Amino acid sequence: MNPPRGTLYLMPNTLDFGVDGGLDLQDTLPLGVIRIAARLQHWVAENAKTTRALLKRVDGIVPLAYPLQSIQIQELPRLQKGPRQAEAPDMRPLLQAAMQGHDLGLVSEAGLPAVADPGATLVQAAHTLEIAVRPLSGPTSLLLALAASGLNGQSFAFVGYLPVESAERGRRIRELEAQSKRERQTQLMIETPYRNEALLQALALHLKPDTLLSVSCGLTLPQAWVRSDTIARWKSRMAQLPADVPAVFSLLAG
Amino acid sequence: MNPPRGTLYLMPNTLDFGVDGGLDLQDTLPLGVIRIAARLQHWVAENAKTTRALLKRVDGIVPLAYPLQSIQIQELPRLQKGPRQAEAPDMRPLLQAAMQGHDLGLVSEAGLPAVADPGATLVQAAHTLEIAVRPLSGPTSLLLALAASGLNGQSFAFVGYLPVESAERGRRIRELEAQSKRERQTQLMIETPYRNEALLQALALHLKPDTLLSVSCGLTLPQAWVRSDTIARWKSRMAQLPADVPAVFSLLAG
Repeated sequence: MNPPRGTLYLMPNTLDFGVDGGLDLQDTLPLGVIRIAARLQHWVAENAKTTRALLKRVDGIVPLAYPLQSIQIQELPRLQKGPRQAEAPDMRPLLQAAMQGHDLGLVSEAGLPAVADPGATLVQAAHTLEIAVRPLSGPTSLLLALAASGLNGQSFAFVGYLPVESAERGRRIRELEAQSKRERQTQLMIETPYRNEALLQALALHLKPDTLLSVSCGLTLPQAWVRSDTIARWKSRMAQLPADVPAVFSLLAG
Repeated sequence: MNPPRGTLYLMPNTLDFGVDGGLDLQDTLPLGVIRIAARLQHWVAENAKTTRALLKRVDGIVPLAYPLQSIQIQELPRLQKGPRQAEAPDMRPLLQAAMQGHDLGLVSEAGLPAVADPGATLVQAAHTLEIAVRPLSGPTSLLLALAASGLNGQSFAFVGYLPVESAERGRRIRELEAQSKRERQTQLMIETPYRNEALLQALALHLKPDTLLSVSCGLTLPQAWVRSDTIARWKSRMAQLPADVPAVFSLLAG
């Protein structure tokens, strides 16, 4: 007989990745979630080293059930960028602990795994193997940004990164504005921090004056910053965006 | 001279609305967020009565800074359903405490305010008045459902409720499947709980056999349940959905 399967927990991470000093874990993670993290011996992660650092912070609040060196952390295969991947990698080896009856945690570098982040393929494989999947409550920069924008939260889309090449980027921005107008749908996007400023300039250039644009930086951090305004008003008073903190950009056609 | 303005905090609520017994607040809300809630004297809420009940639960963890009866809770105007509203109601009176320098909390019945929930108009008015807006980390059923689905988390859209009328509903389902195929975009929707089962039947009827459908019920609750499968497999083994717990439906065209 097969042992009963373990559960795959989707463990949220704080949004202070790369920020000096970091935050108190309990500013953004519920105690119940920290307790679950403290009792797991098996993890799948984007990065084993930063996951070990996270578990040390967990241990400061709820003592780990296993010594840190006996906790098994397997890394997710890196996503290939660029043209479509030849074939999705086989995720079954990463799920073996759950097949043997152990609970397993999936964690990414920031926020909820499998959202704007690797991990979805692992979750899909878990469903195929009939491993129960339980997402845990925590910070997610996209929804925090949407709530803070004041734009339409009844219909919205996250479209990831825009093209980098300037003509293509302009075309994509106008396409998203048209889609937003047609469906009255907020469009959310992200950018690598050092290109935050360039994306803001491109949005100001290509969007119509009465389109609403919201930019959020460093949500949940002490330096959190949100501005929601029409393009006309952004242009009359441009902001300098930080180049080292992730930002979320949201637009809603006027 | 004007006093400095207060901050508008977007306070997440638990997802156990209407569930008997309820949960430990600390299962889904971070201590840092509970601490902020405990020190606010001014609130805007969907419902003053349930907000008072929430504050009593807060008080059990972090004592409230003000006696409950001296805490001011103003209710958001109800959203009119049906055809477009004549005019957006004036939100400035609700923001008066913040204009006078007091911090203000916005809370809805479940999850993050202003996401699939009223409140966005208030947040927009806060931006116009240059009141700082700070969203706080907590559970959001949409993103928890997306993470747990294993569907594409790099591109997704939330489209709210589908039409109730059967032919229109079928048309909308096929339109969402086509949009999902074109953009490789996960499409998320919700339904009033007593119609969960009817929506599942309609999705099974109108979607193609190789389209993936994920259904999540009661996430963060002990009875949490997630299933992600192709339409072909849903049809060969249909599930009975609960009629009293909110569900999130996500689809990704095959």
